[in-house]
Amino acid sequence: MPSQVYEDLERRFARLSGVDNALGILYWDQETNMPEGSTEIRGEALATLQVLHHELLTDPAMGDRLGEAEGAGGLDDWQQANLREMRRKYLHATAVPSELVEASTKAVTACEVAWRSARRDNDFAGLKPLLQEVLTLTLRIGEAKASALGLDVYDALLDEFEPGLRAKEIDRVFTDLAAFLPDFTGRVLDYQAAQPAPEPLTGPFPVEAQRQLGVALMRAAGFDFTRGRLDVSMHPFCGGADNDTRITTRYDEADFTKALMGVMHETGHALYEQGRPAAWLAQPVGSSRGMAVHESQSLSVEMQACRSREFLQYAAPLMREAFSANVDTAGPAWSVDNLYRLYTKVERGLIRVDADEVTYPAHVILRYRLERAMLAGDLALGDLPGAWADGMAELVGIVPPDDRDGCLQDIHWPGGAWAYFPTYTLGAMIAAQLFDAAGRDEPDLLPALSRGDFSPFIGWMRRNVHAQGSSKASTDLLTAATGRPLDPEVFKEHLARRYLAN
Amino acid sequence: MPSQVYEDLERRFARLSGVDNALGILYWDQETNMPEGSTEIRGEALATLQVLHHELLTDPAMGDRLGEAEGAGGLDDWQQANLREMRRKYLHATAVPSELVEASTKAVTACEVAWRSARRDNDFAGLKPLLQEVLTLTLRIGEAKASALGLDVYDALLDEFEPGLRAKEIDRVFTDLAAFLPDFTGRVLDYQAAQPAPEPLTGPFPVEAQRQLGVALMRAAGFDFTRGRLDVSMHPFCGGADNDTRITTRYDEADFTKALMGVMHETGHALYEQGRPAAWLAQPVGSSRGMAVHESQSLSVEMQACRSREFLQYAAPLMREAFSANVDTAGPAWSVDNLYRLYTKVERGLIRVDADEVTYPAHVILRYRLERAMLAGDLALGDLPGAWADGMAELVGIVPPDDRDGCLQDIHWPGGAWAYFPTYTLGAMIAAQLFDAAGRDEPDLLPALSRGDFSPFIGWMRRNVHAQGSSKASTDLLTAATGRPLDPEVFKEHLARRYLAN
Repeated sequence: MPSQVYEDLERRFARLSGVDNALGILYWDQETNMPEGSTEIRGEALATLQVLHHELLTDPAMGDRLGEAEGAGGLDDWQQANLREMRRKYLHATAVPSELVEASTKAVTACEVAWRSARRDNDFAGLKPLLQEVLTLTLRIGEAKASALGLDVYDALLDEFEPGLRAKEIDRVFTDLAAFLPDFTGRVLDYQAAQPAPEPLTGPFPVEAQRQLGVALMRAAGFDFTRGRLDVSMHPFCGGADNDTRITTRYDEADFTKALMGVMHETGHALYEQGRPAAWLAQPVGSSRGMAVHESQSLSVEMQACRSREFLQYAAPLMREAFSANVDTAGPAWSVDNLYRLYTKVERGLIRVDADEVTYPAHVILRYRLERAMLAGDLALGDLPGAWADGMAELVGIVPPDDRDGCLQDIHWPGGAWAYFPTYTLGAMIAAQLFDAAGRDEPDLLPALSRGDFSPFIGWMRRNVHAQGSSKASTDLLTAATGRPLDPEVFKEHLARRYLAN
Repeated sequence: MPSQVYEDLERRFARLSGVDNALGILYWDQETNMPEGSTEIRGEALATLQVLHHELLTDPAMGDRLGEAEGAGGLDDWQQANLREMRRKYLHATAVPSELVEASTKAVTACEVAWRSARRDNDFAGLKPLLQEVLTLTLRIGEAKASALGLDVYDALLDEFEPGLRAKEIDRVFTDLAAFLPDFTGRVLDYQAAQPAPEPLTGPFPVEAQRQLGVALMRAAGFDFTRGRLDVSMHPFCGGADNDTRITTRYDEADFTKALMGVMHETGHALYEQGRPAAWLAQPVGSSRGMAVHESQSLSVEMQACRSREFLQYAAPLMREAFSANVDTAGPAWSVDNLYRLYTKVERGLIRVDADEVTYPAHVILRYRLERAMLAGDLALGDLPGAWADGMAELVGIVPPDDRDGCLQDIHWPGGAWAYFPTYTLGAMIAAQLFDAAGRDEPDLLPALSRGDFSPFIGWMRRNVHAQGSSKASTDLLTAATGRPLDPEVFKEHLARRYLAN
């Protein structure tokens, strides 16, 4: 029997959920529909709601209620998990003094603006003082959170993105991967060089035909269009609100393959959002877990399912049909074999967002090492370009000719997102482990994909991941679903199977 | 030199403006983009923001600051006007006890749902108890506001829609119009019967061609697409946020003329919103005045400007060009004369929203009389259908065969919008008076319209209406702009000129 105090907390968090849902739609609208002249007014509306959200969450009465509810007991497991998540959100929100939040927001805004021109002009020296300010303030935020959460600085920052995840765990799996990848990448490149080179597909591929194909594949994967949308934005994302999951893409009429796989990636994020239990949506325990688990969902759809030979057997005829009015889709370039080669091509590249499944983790490990060193004071910002080049040489086997395609390529650090990068590769590894376990539990999983039937795959994810919300820490979620904590061998075996034998 | 207290008030209202702008975009999105499955979540998000808005506005500290600022003096005219509008908003928000607001919201929600089926099923008796509850609660709200504002009940309700407007003023002009319209309508019908009948335009008119034509005419009128949009919704409206004015329409491929004039109507609303001074947007004095003045802006564009022969001279070639790929636009049906006859056709009809410029005021006067009688206890709800039929016979000269096309046709009363109807016709009369004055000040106004040049017309409105925000009561605004308060003669002369001599 929950106390009135606990019920008051549920009401407070339902209200916060209302503000979150409003913010989600406003942000989506900003990226898809907003006329250019209303940037400033929209910024003010978003800031107003963010401040109201912060005030509601950090209300001293909230702290009192949390303490009372924790002391009172009488809660079932779900309510206890909900109360834990409430406390976690409260701790993160109250840990940092508001002057520090404000100073950081200002420094980030200035640094993001400067980053755009610094990247264009290859001007790391020009960005450095602003980036130093962001780093300094991020460190102070990390220290404030560390003291409130009883963690060290990096773990305290990481905890906001993937609750419960610790750097020690990242070190364990990244050390293993960093030892594996350089040699493995060389072997994959040799292997692919011995195969027929993928033939490019020649367009034009009209936007509307691309959109319809994307919608058809989203439907096959189980995207619910009565509770979501597909639209266009400069930078693809998955956003919106509860029961209103909106994904975006950006079409290129010369090449449909990237946008299409991008749509399936965002569909993976969306299926997670749409698969959370309806009755939990307004409460913290009903949220998706963290960024690493979220990325595991996008990557299990994109990398594990949709870049498989089985899925491409299903998708290839649909691709040919979608574009047959515009281009000749009868040739060998449109065969399953060639599409598979296109979708699994590996290259050493400079840019993380363009990287393939094999080299991507190396880009992430580099950034993880560098940001830990910078936050620990072991790497001065002035030495970042050199350290970047050394790390690229070691991990990816290629060195950027300038900072534009080196340490200036990502918005994350200028944007104040430190301790975020590792979630990408942890997501890839979790995806591999979940997909492997799902395939053992559902032997028809891969054959079904070749018929466009996602139900064994997504059904398993629904039960083991989506339906769990935030009721467990990510390690516990993964252990319950797969029988063991994160195991780099599964990811490595997946890579070997796909890139050295297929 | 404004006091810190006054500056605190400006900050509080800037915050309210942030919430208002968020609500405007969320409402627009609900009508244009929202997937059906998120109705409930969206309702909760909107309600959350509305409650937060109400709490911020009725914060006891707000009342204290208002009192202090009013006592302190030291404000310039603009600040004094702003403070008056702040007080007005505070009075309206605090006048009604929150239990009464809640009870009314519930009753309205239930009554609106019942109204949809009652209208479909022609079941006034079924709706009556729910409508009685809305009426009773509206009366109690009116009494609460009357006591707070020192007005009588109808004026207190009216003051929310058009601040400063009083029923005495409405009586003065509606009595005049009610005496004029029945006979005048008969004369117009005789006059039009003696002219060639308008030839219908035969489609199909593709949606995209209609949209492009609408955009072209919006641009001609001065709509700023860097601060606004045109989209599609079931019920056309003008909404969005400051610097982000979004109008909607609904296309019919069999008839483009209604949607096109609807677009120009909403463009009139939008030009008002876009024309308010940039520096005032976040403050109450920067708001558009009231619903009657707002309607005067839509109707001055639609009725005064765009249904004029001059404008149609400009628009006719554009219409022909827009649809020439789909239909034969060379015939006499596409002449300026015929388009003018189509756009000025008068008929006695049962439905207000389908009514023409001449008979529309009669529909409104009927509703005004009936709602005043019901609120005064002089007309029982059970007697409404009979009173409706009698009023229609007297004012429009036609009697509905059933309640579906009689007293069940409008959502306003079930929706709790009592004292709203008169603003439509007051808007039409203000539009005529403003347009007349503008034409005297700018002799090139009509000739310019025939060249698609709206600048003399809209330039005058910018200075005399848009730039004024809420700095004056509507009567003072009209007097300053035209040299006299609302004068029914100007509207009647406009009707006579257009419908008996052209």
